[in-house]
Amino acid sequence: MNLVLLLPEDLTAPDRARLTGRRLAHVREVHRAAVGDELAVGLLGGKMGRGRVLRLDDEALDLELTLDQAPPPKLPLTLLIAVPRPKVLNRVVAAAASLGVARIVLLNAWKVEKAYWASPRMKPENLREQLILGLEQAKDTALPDLRLARLFRPFVEDELPGLLAGGTGLMAHPGTGAAAPKVLAAPVTLAIGPEGGWVEAEVQSLLKAGLHPLDLGPRILRTETALAALVGKLF
Amino acid sequence: MNLVLLLPEDLTAPDRARLTGRRLAHVREVHRAAVGDELAVGLLGGKMGRGRVLRLDDEALDLELTLDQAPPPKLPLTLLIAVPRPKVLNRVVAAAASLGVARIVLLNAWKVEKAYWASPRMKPENLREQLILGLEQAKDTALPDLRLARLFRPFVEDELPGLLAGGTGLMAHPGTGAAAPKVLAAPVTLAIGPEGGWVEAEVQSLLKAGLHPLDLGPRILRTETALAALVGKLF
Repeated sequence: MNLVLLLPEDLTAPDRARLTGRRLAHVREVHRAAVGDELAVGLLGGKMGRGRVLRLDDEALDLELTLDQAPPPKLPLTLLIAVPRPKVLNRVVAAAASLGVARIVLLNAWKVEKAYWASPRMKPENLREQLILGLEQAKDTALPDLRLARLFRPFVEDELPGLLAGGTGLMAHPGTGAAAPKVLAAPVTLAIGPEGGWVEAEVQSLLKAGLHPLDLGPRILRTETALAALVGKLF
Repeated sequence: MNLVLLLPEDLTAPDRARLTGRRLAHVREVHRAAVGDELAVGLLGGKMGRGRVLRLDDEALDLELTLDQAPPPKLPLTLLIAVPRPKVLNRVVAAAASLGVARIVLLNAWKVEKAYWASPRMKPENLREQLILGLEQAKDTALPDLRLARLFRPFVEDELPGLLAGGTGLMAHPGTGAAAPKVLAAPVTLAIGPEGGWVEAEVQSLLKAGLHPLDLGPRILRTETALAALVGKLF
């Protein structure tokens, strides 16, 4: 937690916040802060700055806030990602948020098991929690837009072309030999398939919607590793 | 496990292998293979190819091997990384191996807690297991060279300049505003600091040894995310 992220309901006055629970425990046990210390803080959806510790004990952390900095800009990137295994989902969502992805679409695909959609980790509360962990890691206050697309075909045929308008669409897909374009027109939409890859019909639909193939080379990377490597390459 | 990685002791004949334990369980439960199926296999330190399932039951997986492909080339990259928290170490080492890093040096730093070095995860058996998991993920058979440098100063002063000779040395360090060089002379040495960063004396030592600062921008990324993003950016 490189930034203590405050929610609107944490504010007890315009320049005061009271924290309990996970964030209180983290500031006591990991930051080992004391009264008078200043912490990097930010208001979810708002500005960042410093919080001076007024009180810190078993029950609460009280902060006096100076919020005067804008969060870092988002990458002009929509990540279209096949729903990963529940075990991997949290890491992927938090990593995407930490990297500054502006919009995340969790998409169905042939090789996404139905059980993944039923996982408690796909609940909005959990997904939001992972986004917040990513923002706390990266020092950002702006939640990415996150949505679920349970039906591949309607999303890809009806909505994806609109998302792509004027920008660049890329589909990570091994074996095509296609390198990333040298100059990217923003916004960028990047599709990352499931473990085992997109099936051929999905590849054809994504190409038809306007995505260009992008070959990451012979190594098969985990979803979160591929995502970070692609963001590093493209931005 | 995108590649079933065979150890020399798995071979029962030049073109036969018998597997038990973790890999047997994985092929039965995840790959759900059957007799006659072909699996992607590789021999640790050797070639890759196919393994035809001759027997698959509770006790053993027997494979008939055709090993005729070279593994993918390594990146000409030495990763110099401050020992991460044990919880993070496995992921970092496996990710580095999957990305094709040729050499990994786990280095001490001021902000590396002494307890990290004492973790069972720092034992050679565990580190080797994580490298192997990374190779199985990426479809590679060549173990990266991995070494431990328990003393920062002797390593950085006496050994690092030799590693850098003729190549490019980079030190990920926030706040310097320095971008990656457009053209990299291989081999590349990339230093990634601990959570909380290098202390100033370490920065000075690394600069003096010949590393150039590289600023990843305002976002603070987890070690494994930063690593993948840097590899994506540089190669």
